[in-house]
Order: sequence, then structure tokens, then C-alpha cells
Amino acid sequence: MSAALDPAEHGFGRRTLREAPRFVRGRGTYVDDVQLPGMLHLAVLRAPVAHARIASIDTTAAQAHPKVKAVVTGADLAERGLAWMPTLSADTQAVLVTDKVRFQGQEVAFVVAEDRYSARDALELIEVEYDVLPPVVDARTALAPGAPLVRDDVEGRTDNLCFEWESGDAAATAAVFERAEVTLAQDMVYPRIHPAPMETCGAVADYDRIDRRLTLWSTSQAPHAHRTLYAVIAGLPEHRIRVISPDVGGGFGNKVPIYPGYLCAIVGSMLTGRPVKWMEDRTENLVSSTFARDYVMRGEIAATRDGRILGLRSQVLADHGAFNAAATPTKYPAGFFGVFTGSYDIEAAHCAVTAVHTNKAPGGVAYACSFRIAEAVYLVERMVDLLARELGIDPVELRRRNFIRPDAFPYTTRTGWVYDSGDYPAAMAEAVRIAGYDELRAEQAERRARGELMGIGVSFFTEAVGAGPRKDMDMAGLGMADGCELRVYPTGKAVVRISVQSQGQGHETTFAQIVSEELGIPVDDVDVVHGDTDLTPFGLGTYGSRSTPVSGAAAVLAARKVREKGRLLASSVLEAAVADMEWADGAYRVKGDPGTAVTIAEVAARAYGARDLPAGPDGEPLEGGLEASVSYNPENLTYPYGAYLCVVDVDPGTGKVAVRRFIAVDDCGTRINEAVVEGQVHRGLTDGVGIALMEYVGYDEDGNCLAGSLMDYLIPTALEVPDWETGATYIASPHHPIGAKGVGESSTVGSPPAVVNAVLDALQPYGVRHADMPLTPGRVWEAMQGNPTPPS
Amino acid sequence: MSAALDPAEHGFGRRTLREAPRFVRGRGTYVDDVQLPGMLHLAVLRAPVAHARIASIDTTAAQAHPKVKAVVTGADLAERGLAWMPTLSADTQAVLVTDKVRFQGQEVAFVVAEDRYSARDALELIEVEYDVLPPVVDARTALAPGAPLVRDDVEGRTDNLCFEWESGDAAATAAVFERAEVTLAQDMVYPRIHPAPMETCGAVADYDRIDRRLTLWSTSQAPHAHRTLYAVIAGLPEHRIRVISPDVGGGFGNKVPIYPGYLCAIVGSMLTGRPVKWMEDRTENLVSSTFARDYVMRGEIAATRDGRILGLRSQVLADHGAFNAAATPTKYPAGFFGVFTGSYDIEAAHCAVTAVHTNKAPGGVAYACSFRIAEAVYLVERMVDLLARELGIDPVELRRRNFIRPDAFPYTTRTGWVYDSGDYPAAMAEAVRIAGYDELRAEQAERRARGELMGIGVSFFTEAVGAGPRKDMDMAGLGMADGCELRVYPTGKAVVRISVQSQGQGHETTFAQIVSEELGIPVDDVDVVHGDTDLTPFGLGTYGSRSTPVSGAAAVLAARKVREKGRLLASSVLEAAVADMEWADGAYRVKGDPGTAVTIAEVAARAYGARDLPAGPDGEPLEGGLEASVSYNPENLTYPYGAYLCVVDVDPGTGKVAVRRFIAVDDCGTRINEAVVEGQVHRGLTDGVGIALMEYVGYDEDGNCLAGSLMDYLIPTALEVPDWETGATYIASPHHPIGAKGVGESSTVGSPPAVVNAVLDALQPYGVRHADMPLTPGRVWEAMQGNPTPPS
Repeated sequence: MSAALDPAEHGFGRRTLREAPRFVRGRGTYVDDVQLPGMLHLAVLRAPVAHARIASIDTTAAQAHPKVKAVVTGADLAERGLAWMPTLSADTQAVLVTDKVRFQGQEVAFVVAEDRYSARDALELIEVEYDVLPPVVDARTALAPGAPLVRDDVEGRTDNLCFEWESGDAAATAAVFERAEVTLAQDMVYPRIHPAPMETCGAVADYDRIDRRLTLWSTSQAPHAHRTLYAVIAGLPEHRIRVISPDVGGGFGNKVPIYPGYLCAIVGSMLTGRPVKWMEDRTENLVSSTFARDYVMRGEIAATRDGRILGLRSQVLADHGAFNAAATPTKYPAGFFGVFTGSYDIEAAHCAVTAVHTNKAPGGVAYACSFRIAEAVYLVERMVDLLARELGIDPVELRRRNFIRPDAFPYTTRTGWVYDSGDYPAAMAEAVRIAGYDELRAEQAERRARGELMGIGVSFFTEAVGAGPRKDMDMAGLGMADGCELRVYPTGKAVVRISVQSQGQGHETTFAQIVSEELGIPVDDVDVVHGDTDLTPFGLGTYGSRSTPVSGAAAVLAARKVREKGRLLASSVLEAAVADMEWADGAYRVKGDPGTAVTIAEVAARAYGARDLPAGPDGEPLEGGLEASVSYNPENLTYPYGAYLCVVDVDPGTGKVAVRRFIAVDDCGTRINEAVVEGQVHRGLTDGVGIALMEYVGYDEDGNCLAGSLMDYLIPTALEVPDWETGATYIASPHHPIGAKGVGESSTVGSPPAVVNAVLDALQPYGVRHADMPLTPGRVWEAMQGNPTPPS
Repeated sequence: MSAALDPAEHGFGRRTLREAPRFVRGRGTYVDDVQLPGMLHLAVLRAPVAHARIASIDTTAAQAHPKVKAVVTGADLAERGLAWMPTLSADTQAVLVTDKVRFQGQEVAFVVAEDRYSARDALELIEVEYDVLPPVVDARTALAPGAPLVRDDVEGRTDNLCFEWESGDAAATAAVFERAEVTLAQDMVYPRIHPAPMETCGAVADYDRIDRRLTLWSTSQAPHAHRTLYAVIAGLPEHRIRVISPDVGGGFGNKVPIYPGYLCAIVGSMLTGRPVKWMEDRTENLVSSTFARDYVMRGEIAATRDGRILGLRSQVLADHGAFNAAATPTKYPAGFFGVFTGSYDIEAAHCAVTAVHTNKAPGGVAYACSFRIAEAVYLVERMVDLLARELGIDPVELRRRNFIRPDAFPYTTRTGWVYDSGDYPAAMAEAVRIAGYDELRAEQAERRARGELMGIGVSFFTEAVGAGPRKDMDMAGLGMADGCELRVYPTGKAVVRISVQSQGQGHETTFAQIVSEELGIPVDDVDVVHGDTDLTPFGLGTYGSRSTPVSGAAAVLAARKVREKGRLLASSVLEAAVADMEWADGAYRVKGDPGTAVTIAEVAARAYGARDLPAGPDGEPLEGGLEASVSYNPENLTYPYGAYLCVVDVDPGTGKVAVRRFIAVDDCGTRINEAVVEGQVHRGLTDGVGIALMEYVGYDEDGNCLAGSLMDYLIPTALEVPDWETGATYIASPHHPIGAKGVGESSTVGSPPAVVNAVLDALQPYGVRHADMPLTPGRVWEAMQGNPTPPS
């Protein structure tokens, strides 16, 4: 176990954000800012019902609208073989409905018109007759005999089963439960939520009929993977497709999948020969784009009386909606839910996941959750809290007793995951220190005595981020690697091109810092290029907190390749033996003569300009120039972790929860930019408060989505969250060249159980054992009345 | 000596041009097509006199013009340290005049206004008072005592000497001349001419004040070199400058230098915060941009009576104008004039070049001449023709007797150049065969007998193209290498990015053909990216026929690197030993089992998608992806050559020359696309007719340029040229991976002496020994009267 790089020593402490001037002054360029000469606008007609056969579509009136350039239905796409498309999760999804509607909001037709208003107006001129079918809305009835069949498009399919998957050793787990002194079981729901990024999804497609080139500005989090799939779906030549993801206003997983709208824009441009813009409105984004979670879970925990956890078992029913649209690695259809043993050294564990189709929007794994780890962490952290209460052991103490020991890393879990590094007790101790945990408990006792409902919630999470490795998984047959190209120009300035792409995470700053650190080039002299398939190397994209673990590692290794070539050049500058050259303090130096230094800039001038270049390892003169490229396939995931403490006050009269304090100690190894890490943590904590207390995508029994606006789907504002109190420990990942781990999703994963545990801690005087998220005032009040809302 | 690749066998025969649809349908995008929101227009005030001190400039009235945004003078630039800039030939040039005007048309000030018309109008509102100085116009008086000093800006300069340079062995040459049976001397002039590209020079500069990024659309032939120099000149960070050379309407060397106008556009955009377009008009291009040639030469030849050439000697006075602006390799200030021994095996040779400054437009070497080889070839081919006449030997026969023998290659000339390969007698034989040379001579005799003036001119040239190699030269301290990046995408389509850039030479086709040939990918599945510093690797650019010899070689080698990586993947697909894998007929095959083939597309799918990749040479698993990059520094120049025969008819009454036939047999080794090669040859032959008969940039004694329009500067049209008769021989270059040589300038170099030799052959009945180009009707008529125009 080694310490991560010290920020102070390594220039990684720098907190400035290069993107700030652009964003602060309103000079960002988002997809909706793209204006092209002659651009048309596309609007999508969406089904008003959840399940229905289409009896007829009449587009005559819409076609006749004076500003309409094209009206396209599923039948039109079917003629071109474009009615269905592969998803990133080994499923097939309708681009436009040809047979039947499978969820409310599904794409039925689209209109391309001179302006956005005319396109919308013309939608109302399309007459569709629907033969409504009974829908499957509740996952718990989806496999019941006689349930309507959602996916009758799939040959041989007779029920709504999407997949079944299990992990761990069922027999060993059963044995442990058999002999345990204490066992507990709890049903719980991780409700359906929505990433709700500030910017909705959209695209501008520009197809050049003469050069047969397609340029697509899109909100995608994975431009390269999208490009390849557009080539496959639309039969366009991959090398003539350029996908540009410009500034993107938040992704959180919502922008990983390929949506029908992107393809509609492409088809619209090919049909009209003009650029076509499609941009979701808020309702379309909430109702039709991929949601997250929706896990109905039964958790079981087995332990000794003195608090040694022996076994964990879980059974999950996952609602994947009408199509399995999100990006799941091939080998793990239930994502990384298998990491559900959390941060504890447990003798045996087993989980089983059954996923079903329902008449709801497609999806399943999006939203800053590293492929289902949010659900896994929630399950284990709730079960551990229940156990603590059962045994009368302090929840911090119970966790301490069961933590994987620092000397046990690398640690293989009972479900086969190899955690890379950690010092869990240290992180927990730091959170306890910042919180003043003992004082809080004392205060709680005092307040309780006064009838006040103060709660202290604890959670400890371990994340698995930075997919690959390739040997274990791939996405859509495209591997799991990410690329980096680094070029140092003659004047010593560098440009680094990365395959991942920012949706606000500060890549333009952090990747410059990585190169700066490795090559001794000032940060401002390093430019970062991303989000354009023509400008960047191939890679799988930004999700699952992959940027730093995968692309960041690629950047480090590319810089080191450059440094190695530079060493040969520096040795010839200094007329010293290569073996005597060392890299120290940002320059090449002759061992034993630290006064003589050659910088990368001097080496660059020589790499381009010198008449004679020294010989390379093969004895041939070096090629000119100073550049390197890397395609990085990580050896393992990285496992960031954290200890969270939440303090809430519950209004005994209304059930309203106020989050008074939130202490978050994260360990993500080396931190390249503390401000960026903190920004990520702050954002995820806000997610957590929203998820725990407010956010919920509900459906009525007819399959009508009840979360179609931000008046219905509530997300927290600055008023609902406290001033965050963050801390850090720094244990390097041995599987990353600078010891960094991904941190983009940590706090989204780790914070909901802390909030829920705090609320249930506050409700102890009422004897409430569990209540499901979102803990709205109504639900809390019902729970206080002894009527916890049943899982829904 | 090996034969070049057979076009029929290697798919290089394909004659289609990918660029054709774009150009034919008017969909090319030239700099003047770039329209940006808020774009301003820039006009340059140019000096009306050749030599003058500026007594005063008053911009008050121009500033007050309601549509003017900025008026900038040399003094304004001097404040910013931008008044002077380095040239690509180790000189320094004024961006705007600060001290004195040095040539007519020099940049004095510029205006940026809302539209082009207002900018032009405002120029007339700038009041400049000039104190006129006597100019130096004739190079032959430039070094005379008391000549006005052009470059008083250079410290310590007391005369107009630009440089002196010599090559060869003066003493050995003198000795050969001493003992020769025959010696001849001739004064001749290669007049000042202008490349006159269809598109003039221009730029659109767009400086983003917030991101501090400069994007420059420019007509440059060398975007990467320009970018680095803009960084150096303007102090902008190189990594935040993007130079885009979009479609360019001809370069011919005219677009290699950095012109003040580019920098004015950059400064204009930085000052106004808006995009600024500058576009020369025709007069500006003809009067102010770099010219070519302007060599006053004395040639001497020594031989035996039976036609064995023993020695060659030349003395040159070169007029470089006010600034040495063009791109000359560092070691060769007089360019490659040292190759003046031509295609002949000669015992001794010596040349001396004296270059001077005059009050004329800057320049010296541009215009499709491979750095002065046009002058060298003209000199030797005229001298050989004079010798043939002196000895009464047929000019074809005399050349045959002196050719370097095919078995003598690689052949080192007396001036130290290593010719790579050739079979000169074969090329000459082919030209003679196509022409029906003997019949032509018989026809000539008949016509002469009738008083008709038919002439048959011969020339044989050897070019030196494709600079590097780096060990011998570099340009502006940036080396001489060119880069190539090749990426094969998951679906097996490829994109190749090259550092050279097309001005109409068909790069998008020929580079796709190279990759197609090397990797078995269909030509249409290979995309070529060029002309954008953000999209392409660093390299020196397109001039000196470098594209195929340098960047073409880089593309071959990059493809072979990809093929080598693919071999490892293919061996794992076929489960065969790597050593047993061979590449044949566009696929990997197991030796001895030609039926089992794996294509690059199959390999690509595996390179990206497979969970397990085989080990590379270092024993580690291969990186994912399928790509390679190369920076190619050629081992040597390539030496294309050709045999040209020209048939002219001269009107005895007017002296008007009509070119009746022109036979051009070129050998440039492997031809990637015969149509592209022929197009280049046709263009250069047209150049040759223009240079020999029409084109001339004259000046009056006050330094006024007399070639300010295409009414004054005559270039040939379809009416002045015959149907070209082209032929080919194919001897591979051993210094190029597919045996190709550059051909872009061959016919411009080789054709003028053939035309001139033909005219002088026609004039034999008048006893005219020599007359200087351009052989206009007037000059020919004067020569017929015994008054050949003296060198001017």
C-alpha cells in the first residue's frame, strides 16, 4: 500500500479551471448553439399511451404544412432498413414504431421543418389511430402468467424476462446463514430516478450529399462508440462520419445510449440534404430517455452476536423498461451489482438478479452509478445499519469491525472482484474526526430527550470504476480501451488528444495537468482536445468514472513515451551517455550533475530542427518530431471509497427532512486537481440528497409517466443541501501509473444510504425499521404513523 | 536498378479523382469562401514607389470612415514588436514599412472595415508623404560603387550583396577547359517570372480573446511551418494556433512564404476581436508576392571534337529583390542550382552564384522549380544545344553520347549530388520513337527548303525533388521531415492524416491509393485528411515536389506498421504461428495455405473488440486499436527525369512562334495515379510554353512593375498550347519504399529549354545563336534581324 502523490509536491494541487472563462462568460458552445446555414429543425411525435398497436398513421396534413420538408414514419424507415437499431446492451430498439408502441413517449414519427415551431405544429397534424393494449407497469407482475408480452418482436420470446444473472456462492452462503447467530432480512426499493442533466439530449446532423460525409454534433458521452454504431446502423462509411460532442451540459449516464432522435436527425439530413437540428424538451428527456435504478431488492445479512458479519444475500428484480438501452458491459448484464459485499470482509455472499421488460421507457443502468453499484452500496449499507440496530452496536463501530483490513489489499471479494487498495479505517476515522461524531451522538441524545428528531447516518462505500479491463468486458464489441495522442510542437508547447470527453468534468484542465506534471511543461502550454472523432483517438468514452482511470492513464503513459524519446535527444544535447540521463524536477539531468538541465522544450526544438538525430533503440536514427500515442486497456478497475456521515433533522409534525450537515471523506488516490474532485463530490452529494429525499419517476396503472416536468420530478436546489464538509485520504491505486482512481460517481453512490440511515436514525423513537426512498415528508410522516410506504 | 511497380498489377493505374465531384460542382471551399459571423475585411495600403523614405502618414480621415474598425501603420506594429518578421530564408522582412519603402507594392498600412469596399475606400483616405530615393532596379548595377543601399536595416551592411555561394571544383574545371578541344561561352537570362496561381493569396484570421486561440484559414502551402513561425513572430502560443489551408487554387511555390498580409489579418483580428478576411487582388499578387527565377547567367562548356563533354562552368547573378523571402534550405542559399551538370557524366564542373538585393518585390526561388533547378537545366540544355550546333552533331545524339550510363547509378555528380536511379537512353529513345524524330528532321529539311521556319528542340532534364534529407538541409530550423498518421477503425475503414497539403494535386486520391495498395482496403474506404494543423501531424509542407517522395513514403511506412501489427492479430485469428503468416494479395495468409485469408477489416474488428489480444514483440498484450504514425525523413532526394521534344513553327513575317507538337517522356518511378501524373505534366508543359514565349515581369528604370495585370503578364491559354503527347518509362527510386519520385515540377523545369531550343533551331537559317526568353514575336523578329534582345 503506497501513498498517493502529494498534491503540494506534484503541482496537482492547482485548483484553477481552464474552462471557467468560457463557461462563466457564456461562451460555451453546446449542441443547441450550433447554427448552420440552411439548417432545418426536427420534432418527434411521441406515443401518448404505454402499450398500443398502431392501426393507422395519416401524415397528409402534416406533409401539406408549408414549412414542412419531410414527415417520416416507422414504415418509411423500415423501407430503408432503419426501423430498428442495436442498443449498447445487446438489445434491439425501435427507432420509430412499426408494429406497436411499447412505452409512453416512444418515437412514432418525426417532422423536419423550416423552424422549430412549424415542426412542432406539424406534429399535431399527424393523425395516428392507436389500438390500446393493457400494459405491464409493475415489474413484480411482469413475469406473472398471462402478463401482456412487451417484446413480441423478439423471436421465441414468450414472457417478459430480460435476463437472469447471479454471482457468488449460493450453497456456501446458505450454509453461513444456517449457522449464524443473527440473521436479518429486509425488502427495499431503489426507486426509478432520472439523471435530468441541465442540457437535454440533441443533435445537429449535417450530411453532405456530394462528399457523402456526415457530421453530427451530438450530446453523446461516447462519440467514438456512437460513430461506429451509426456506421453499422445507417450503413454509412465510418471513416466519413464525424461525431462532435462540443460542450455538454451534464451527462451522468443519460447521454451514453444511442437515442432514436440522433438517428432521426441523421435520416432527416440525408433526406433533405440540409443540416437538421433535433433537441429534446424537458418532458421528452424525462419521459423518454434512459432512467436509472428501479431495483426491487430483498437483502439478507448473517452475523455473530458480537457483530462479525458472516454472509450477505440479495435477490433483485430489475425493471429494464421496454428496451435494454443503456451501456452494460457484455459479461455483466446486471452491471457491477456483484460488488454488493461493499467494504466488508465477509465469509460468503450470493446475489441473484432477475431483469424484466415493462411498458416503461428503456434503460436500466444510467446515472452516475458505475453500473449498479449505487444499488449494491445502498443494499449493504442499509443491511449493516439494520444489523447495528439489531445488535445494539454503534453503526460506525460495527463497520469498523468488519472492514477489509488495510494489509489485505489487493483483496478478492467473495464475488470475485479484486479491490486494488485502501485504508478504510483511516477514512472512517477522518470522517468521525471532522464530524465530531461523539459530540453529535451526545447532542442527539439531548435533543431526543427534548422530543426533537435528530438523526446521524453513516455510510461507507467502495466503488468499482474505470472499466475495462478488456479481458473481463467490452461494450458493443468495441473493447474497453481509451486512447491518447500527445504531440510536443517545435516551440515546446503540447497538445494532448483524448478519446474521452467532458460533460463538465474539467478535462481541459486535468489532462493538461497530467501532461504538465509528466513533462515539466507549464500547464498553460498544454492544450487538451476532446469530443471530436476527427480530432481524437478511438476510445470508449466518458462514463463509469473512466476518464482518469483509463484515459488519464493513457495520457500519463503517452507522456512517458515522449519523455523516453526525449531522453535520447537530451543525451545527445548534453553529449552524455543515455544511461547517465535521468529525469528530475521537470528536466533531464546528467546523474551526479544536477546543475545541467535540458527541458522538454529544448528537446522539442532539437527533435524537429536538428540536422542529425541520435540513434534510437533499433540503432536507426530517431524519427523527427516529439509525439506518442497510447491505447490504454487497464489491468484492473480502480476502487475509490469513502466514509460519509449525514446529520438530519426531521420535523415531527410534517415529516419534512432537513439535511443539517454532511461530512464526506473520499479517497480516490492521487488527486490531479482538488477543485475538480471537490466539484464532483459536491455534485454527487447533491444527487444523493435528491435521490434519498425527493426524486422519483412514478407511473400510474395505465403506464402514464408521472414525472414529465421538473415540477413533478423534484431535484434539490441550493436550499435543500447544506454546506458540504469534505475531507480526503490518499491511498494510491497500484493499477494506475500515477495512483489515481475515478471519483466522478463516488458521492452519488455513497450518499443516499447515509441520508436514509440518518432519517431512520432520527425516527428511532417511532420504531421505524425501514422506509423506502424518496423520503418525502409524506412518506416520512406515514412511516412515523407506522405505515411505511410499501415498495413500489 | 529495378523497375517501378507495374500500375496494372498494383491498382495504381486507377485514374479517378476523388476531389472531382467537389470541384466540378463548385463545392470546393477556398479561403475566400469562408464567411464567419461578424467577419471584417482587411485591405492593404501599398507603396506606389520603389524606394522612398516615409516622411509622414496621416490616418485621421481613414479612422473617421464610419465603417472602419482599425487603421494600422508600421509604427503601430513597431509598438507591439511586430514590424519585422523572419522569412523562411534566413532574412528579415518588414510587415509594414517603418523606415523606408523598398519595393513598389510594399505594405505600408492596413485598414479593417465592415466590408471590403469600405476597407478599400478608406485606403485612399490615408495620406502618406514619400521622400523618393533613387532605386536599384538592375541586378547588374546593384554592386556598383555608389549604388543606393537597399538593406540599410541590416547592421553592418554596406552594399547590396545578399549572398555568394559556389559549388564544384574551380581548379579542376579550369584545367579541363584549358585542355579542351572546344570551348563555348554564352550569356543568357532566365527572366523574372511569376507563378500567378488562379487563386491569389489570402487569409481569414479569427482570434478568440476569451480562449486566446487563433484560427487562421490561409492559402499556405506549408500550414505547419507557418503555424510555428506565427507563434514565434506574434508571440502566440503555438498550441493554440490552428492553421487551416482548405482547398487552395494553385500554389506553385507562390504560397510557401509568409506574407505580411497573413500577419496583418492576425493583428487585425486580435485588435478588433472579430474575424478578419484579407484577400489579395490580382495586381497585389503579381506585384507584391514572390516571383521566380531572375538569373543572369554565363554558361561555359568544354568538350572534345567528337562530342564528349568535359566540363561545365557557370557564373550567375541572382536578383533576390528587397527581401530574401522564399523558402530556401539552409545549406543551399542558391537552392539546388548546384545540380547544373544535368543528366551528363562530366569530368569537372563549377558554378558560382552571387545574389543581390534590388528595389523589387521579395523572393527568389518560388514557382515549381525545385529550388533553382529550372535555371540549372535551362543553362545546361542551352549549352549542350550550342555545342551540338558548333560540332555539327545532332542534339539527340550529342546528349546520348554524354548521358550518365544506366549502370552508373547511384551516380555522384561533380557537385556532390547522388542521383538515385535512371535509364536516360531509354527515356530519350521513347521520346524519339513517339515523336518520329527522323521523319521530323526530314520534314524540317523539306520545309526549310520551302523557306518555312520549322524548329525541333530537345531537352533532357534531371530533377532533384523531395527535400530533406535532414542531414543536408532544413527549412527555418524546422527540419525536413513529414508525418503521417493512419488509423483503421473498427469497421475496417481507414483515415490517413498527412502533413502535406494539396493545392490541386489530388492528394485525397493518391494517398488513399497508397494506403489501399498497402493494406488491401478499397480506395473508397480510405479517407485522406490534410491542410489543417489541428487534424494532421507536423511536417514541412507541399513544395519542391515533396508530397509523394516524403509524405507518400511516410504513408507507405505507416501502412506497413499497421500491417505488421495486423500480422500478430491475424496469426491469432488463424491460430497460426506469426512466422508462418504472410501478406499476399491484400490479405494475411498462412504460408502454404493461400486459401485461408484474413483481411485488414477482420483484423480491425479484433483489434478493437476482442477480449484477448495476442502478445506483442515485448511479450506484453498488444494495445487495442489499429493505427500507426510515422515521421519520415528521406534518406536522399529522388531524381525524376525526362526527355522532351518540341516542334515549333515560326512565322517568318512576324516572328510569332506556334508550338505544333510537344512530346514529353517522364520517368518518376512508380506512378500512383497516372491521371494525376499526367495532369501535373500537362500543367508544367503549359508553364514551359508560357515561360519560353510569353511570361515576363519587367520593371522600368524607376522600379515600377510592368506586370501588374494578366493583360501585361501573359500566360498561355488552350490556344497557345498543342495537344500534349506524353510517354513514360518506369525506373524505381531505391530511396522510396514504393519506388516513387516526385513529378510536380518536372515539366516546368524540363520544357522551357525544349521550346527555346526549338525556336533557335527554327531560326538556324538566320544564323541566330541565342535569344533570351520570353521569345515573344518582337524578340524573335529582332533576333531574325540580327538584333537579339540583350539580357535584361
